[in-house]
Amino acid sequence: MPVGTQGIVKALLPDMLTSIGYKLMLSNTYHLYLRPGIEIIEAFGGLHKFANFNGSILTDSGGFQVFSLSDLRKVAIEGVRFKSHIDGSYHFFTPEKVLDLQFRFKSDIAMVLDECPAYGLDKSATEKSLNITLNWAKRSSVIERPKDTAVFGIVQGGIFEDLRKKSALEISDMNFDGIAIGGLSVGEPLQQMYDTVAFTIEHLPKDKPRYAMGVGRPEDIITLVGFGIDMFDCVMPTRNARNGYLFTDFGNINIKNAIYAKDKSPIDEHCNCYTCKNFSRGFLRHLYKAKELSFYTLATIHNLTYYYNLIQSIKDAIKKGEFEQFAKSFLEKRRYGNS
Amino acid sequence: MPVGTQGIVKALLPDMLTSIGYKLMLSNTYHLYLRPGIEIIEAFGGLHKFANFNGSILTDSGGFQVFSLSDLRKVAIEGVRFKSHIDGSYHFFTPEKVLDLQFRFKSDIAMVLDECPAYGLDKSATEKSLNITLNWAKRSSVIERPKDTAVFGIVQGGIFEDLRKKSALEISDMNFDGIAIGGLSVGEPLQQMYDTVAFTIEHLPKDKPRYAMGVGRPEDIITLVGFGIDMFDCVMPTRNARNGYLFTDFGNINIKNAIYAKDKSPIDEHCNCYTCKNFSRGFLRHLYKAKELSFYTLATIHNLTYYYNLIQSIKDAIKKGEFEQFAKSFLEKRRYGNS
Ligand SMILES: [Zn+2]
Ligand SMILES: [Zn+2]
Repeated sequence: MPVGTQGIVKALLPDMLTSIGYKLMLSNTYHLYLRPGIEIIEAFGGLHKFANFNGSILTDSGGFQVFSLSDLRKVAIEGVRFKSHIDGSYHFFTPEKVLDLQFRFKSDIAMVLDECPAYGLDKSATEKSLNITLNWAKRSSVIERPKDTAVFGIVQGGIFEDLRKKSALEISDMNFDGIAIGGLSVGEPLQQMYDTVAFTIEHLPKDKPRYAMGVGRPEDIITLVGFGIDMFDCVMPTRNARNGYLFTDFGNINIKNAIYAKDKSPIDEHCNCYTCKNFSRGFLRHLYKAKELSFYTLATIHNLTYYYNLIQSIKDAIKKGEFEQFAKSFLEKRRYGNS
Repeated sequence: MPVGTQGIVKALLPDMLTSIGYKLMLSNTYHLYLRPGIEIIEAFGGLHKFANFNGSILTDSGGFQVFSLSDLRKVAIEGVRFKSHIDGSYHFFTPEKVLDLQFRFKSDIAMVLDECPAYGLDKSATEKSLNITLNWAKRSSVIERPKDTAVFGIVQGGIFEDLRKKSALEISDMNFDGIAIGGLSVGEPLQQMYDTVAFTIEHLPKDKPRYAMGVGRPEDIITLVGFGIDMFDCVMPTRNARNGYLFTDFGNINIKNAIYAKDKSPIDEHCNCYTCKNFSRGFLRHLYKAKELSFYTLATIHNLTYYYNLIQSIKDAIKKGEFEQFAKSFLEKRRYGNS
């Protein structure tokens, strides 16, 4: 699921996204609430109409942004008070308010408000934070929702197995349409992220979508699918694209590298994307070095196509009962490729 | 003719340019010579292949950029020595060299090297500069050119009628496929720019394309077509787009204006562009305020469509013998529109 924080994927037109094949985009309640504001989006009849996007939209609750972007915040059991990173104004989010905002956006999937503990927080502070998250989740689970909107709960608990278990069991017992694992990729070592997902997902029901928030690299996706994760969102394909890092099955390409200056081949000759069908590494490198805006569009198209094709290949392999071989050979190719 | 300095129109994909209707793009010898360099473009077989652009390409000689971007330059009759604005390295352009570069780019239209005198330069200095430009033009006119490349001469002479006349007559006598009027829109008052074009074009042959370089606003295009100009290039539609200034027949729209926040109408309801068919002023304003890269693409598509349609309307009006009425009503609509 590509990230379109402001209602559009950066450097892309909505048509390009759907023509790659994506049917779901992630937007952000915190950002859209602050700018343009709920009043404006509501005047247009919701986010789909405002952004003229005919796919589905999942909105993040904004919990993560409150904790990562706002330099002043105060969490209490009632909710969180925070300062806008745009104009310094003060706002108050409660679990009830963020769901109401998302219902008014007419999001297809709404996420509950949660608190994401910083990596390195000790166990007792993490538990205190988790208890707030669970209180917020409980209150969120009993709110009546529009019939076309699904609501997902979020499991927290840091890197502590017993806290993750408690969180997973309690969230699973509440009335949610899907369950997300939050608090991943916040600075912890890779193996610890994998372990956390592994010991958390054990306690989640298999009949609901399980969503790993903010993960990750192609390697991470393959690994977590192996654990049972069904949904991902990540800024990596789009952000890396804008920084000149392009994904291929044989490793990543850093397009600013001088070896690509006269390279007439596409980023990946097996890729079927618009960029690979039309442009050489040499020209893309030139556009990157000249800071041409079109570069960001072309690179984003390629990286999102790469991720889309990756997900399709995973689905095919699972259907054929060949996921394990697929994962093994994929990880090897990526490891030994020219990166 | 839209400006694609680096081989691509900023924020646009080549497909979008041709699907608007444009068949000719302006690229820049100074920029492309410095980066990526002639060697790389030649390795790809020229600029069309490098940029995968299937329209025609006119390359500016780079004279203007040498005089506007390089902070150190020394002009002599032989050529101009200048310092790169990118890495501070020194380079030497002669009229022979810039044509050779453009031939190796496989440009469809190559421009001769000229010196563009600064606005406010006195007459004797302007005349001295003109004599260098004319010497360079003479040398350029006798260079053998590839059979698919046209070469245009450039008239200079500042704001001085007799210098412009001398320049126009001499350039007209040389072996060029088209003639440009340079040194316009360099800070002079609008009326002085109009007067300069008017007294220069009198002395140019009607059977060759006459090209006003770096002009201008829709009003300027209409006015100069009235004087007999056939070709224009200007960064205004693309640069203004990126700054949120959108063109319409009833005046310009500054999309950041708060009155557009809840505006569900397109930029211009008569416009047939992709942006106007899909997006509202309200959403575009949101993207502009959030500095979303997609805004630059959407705004550029609209402004270039506006200019393209303007040129088509002018051609139609001329064909029907109604240019004067068209120009009058156009200028009135623009003047009294809500800008
Ligand atoms: Zn590709
Ligand atoms: Zn339009």
